[in-house]
Formats: sequence, C-alpha cells, structure tokens
Amino acid sequence: MRVLGLDPGLRRTGWGVIDAEGTRLVHVANGVITSDDKAELADRLVQLHRGIEAVMAAQEPDEAAVEVSLANKNPASTLKLGMARGIALLTPALAGLLVGEYLPMIVKKSVVGTGHATKEQVQMMVQRLLPGCEIKNADSADALALAICHAHNRETDRKWTRGGEDPLQMALAGRRRR
Amino acid sequence: MRVLGLDPGLRRTGWGVIDAEGTRLVHVANGVITSDDKAELADRLVQLHRGIEAVMAAQEPDEAAVEVSLANKNPASTLKLGMARGIALLTPALAGLLVGEYLPMIVKKSVVGTGHATKEQVQMMVQRLLPGCEIKNADSADALALAICHAHNRETDRKWTRGGEDPLQMALAGRRRR
Repeated sequence: MRVLGLDPGLRRTGWGVIDAEGTRLVHVANGVITSDDKAELADRLVQLHRGIEAVMAAQEPDEAAVEVSLANKNPASTLKLGMARGIALLTPALAGLLVGEYLPMIVKKSVVGTGHATKEQVQMMVQRLLPGCEIKNADSADALALAICHAHNRETDRKWTRGGEDPLQMALAGRRRR
Repeated sequence: MRVLGLDPGLRRTGWGVIDAEGTRLVHVANGVITSDDKAELADRLVQLHRGIEAVMAAQEPDEAAVEVSLANKNPASTLKLGMARGIALLTPALAGLLVGEYLPMIVKKSVVGTGHATKEQVQMMVQRLLPGCEIKNADSADALALAICHAHNRETDRKWTRGGEDPLQMALAGRRRR
C-alpha cells in the first residue's frame, strides 16, 4: 500500500510518499508545494490543489493522511490554515482515495513513541524508519511522519475517527483542562 | 454578466445567481448546498465541491463572489469555516471564473446602504432589488446579497482586494480598536 502524507499550509504544504509492505516501510519521495503569496487567495488554493494533483499523478498513492492541525491563536491564520487543510482533504478524496486525519500528538506518538516529541526527534525517527531517505525540508519530514503514522494506525484510527468523536474537539477539550 | 454568490459553511452553503445588465439586476436562481454531517470531513468537502460544480453547470455564471466571513470565537468552528470557504473559493477559480471576496459589512453597505444592517433588512432589500425573486432561505438570501454586492462593486473592489490589503485583517484590526 502506498500512502501520501500531507502537512497542509497555505504558503507551504509538505508531502511525503511511502510504501507500506506489512510492517516494512520504504521511502518513495517527498517535497513541498508552495503557493505564490502575491496571488489572490482563490488562485493560491488552485495552486495547492494542482500541486497535490501533480504529486498524486506522479506517485499514484492508494491512501492519504492529513494533519488535523490545532487552531492557531490568530483567527485570520486559523481561517487560512482551514482553507489549506480543506484543499488537502478534498483533493485526494475527489480522486477516490481514503483520507485519514491525525492529530500532531498521534503522529509523534506513532513515530517517536511519545506525544511530546520535538520536531528534531520526529525528523530523526523518520530518517531511521525510512533508511536512505533524503528529507528535503521540515514540512516534508512532517508529511513523511504522517504517512508512517497512517501505515501504523490506519485500521484502529479509522474506527476511532469514524466513531463520531471529533479528534480536534477532543484535543481542544484536553487543552482547556490543562 | 451572470454572477454566482456563495455564502460558505460546512453544513450549509447558500448560493444565489443574478444577471447584471448595466445597472439592471435580474434574479436567476437561489438555493442551498448541504453536506451530510454524519459523513467524514473529506467526504463533506467533496459534497460541497460537487454541489457548487452542479450549480455552475446548471446556471453558467461568468464570475463569482464569496463572503470573507469573520472568524468565529471557537477555533474548531473557525477551522471548519475556513475549509468550507476554501472549497467555495477553489471551485469557481478552478473553472476559470474571477472570484471576488467581500466582507459582510461591505455586502450590507452595498445592498442596504449601511454596514450595520440587520439580516432582515438585507433580505428585504434583496427582495426589492430582485423583483419577483422567491428567496428560498436565509443562506441563499445572503448569497444573493453577495452577488448584488459584486455587481455593484466589482471594479473598485477588485482594485481594493488586489492592492495587497487583506480585508479580513483590516476588519479584525477594526474590531480590536472598538
């Protein structure tokens, strides 16, 4: 099974593709899709959509995994993140791919073993889990981590997200409790 | 010129189509696109995208106008609104339509004459500006108001939004000042 991980952002959307053969993981490709921040919003969303389409055409993934980013404190940034995430969810779903959603803490737990891992720890473990992989940048490292997380969790996590509980709401509730 | 107005929401996206012939406005159609709130997020976004595509195929608009909604206080709602708005901006832009973005206060000012008009005043003026129009619901009334606003403002507003100032940031700055 080939998995496309997407770490969405309006300016930079990281992507990473891996093959999961049983428990064996193989790196396929990774990179980043950028949008022109001088272009109008609708045109930037078209650039993201076309960029994801181009990656899917080249890499032919079977399933996709998208980060359920937590909300930013700035409401305008949260809206923009929502837009980029909308495109990252829509584009593979339009092509008929199953799309998994994962919270950053689930990705960290799945890749490093703890939900409170640093970016550097995640990147180091991605490198270790995908020997020979040349990680292009921090965004594509996160996208590869998402793809790994999906390969590890797809069965249990699909049940969980389909069970009606919204992982984002759960995380926000947890955050308020702290 | 035929204008499609879109008032985006994940659960309900209002739409309205008008013809603008010089200063004369003629109602064409209006309605609402809904998504199944029991479906997964990616599938709901596909439903919105396909719904907007179906309206465009049936009505053949030349341009589109989308509401630049202000951020909700709940960050999870803001993310969802961002996703729906992303789809509302992407779908007509993908079809090559110019897409205008308007703040609610600009829409109210354009339709009623004051940026602080009530929903009821907007709906009454939409009814008056589009004689014989049967408004299906509050969401499609807002969408028709957006289409009217675009017909009134497209030249000046395009320059304004293309001038580099982000209307959402401007509005949030205004809100903070109050």
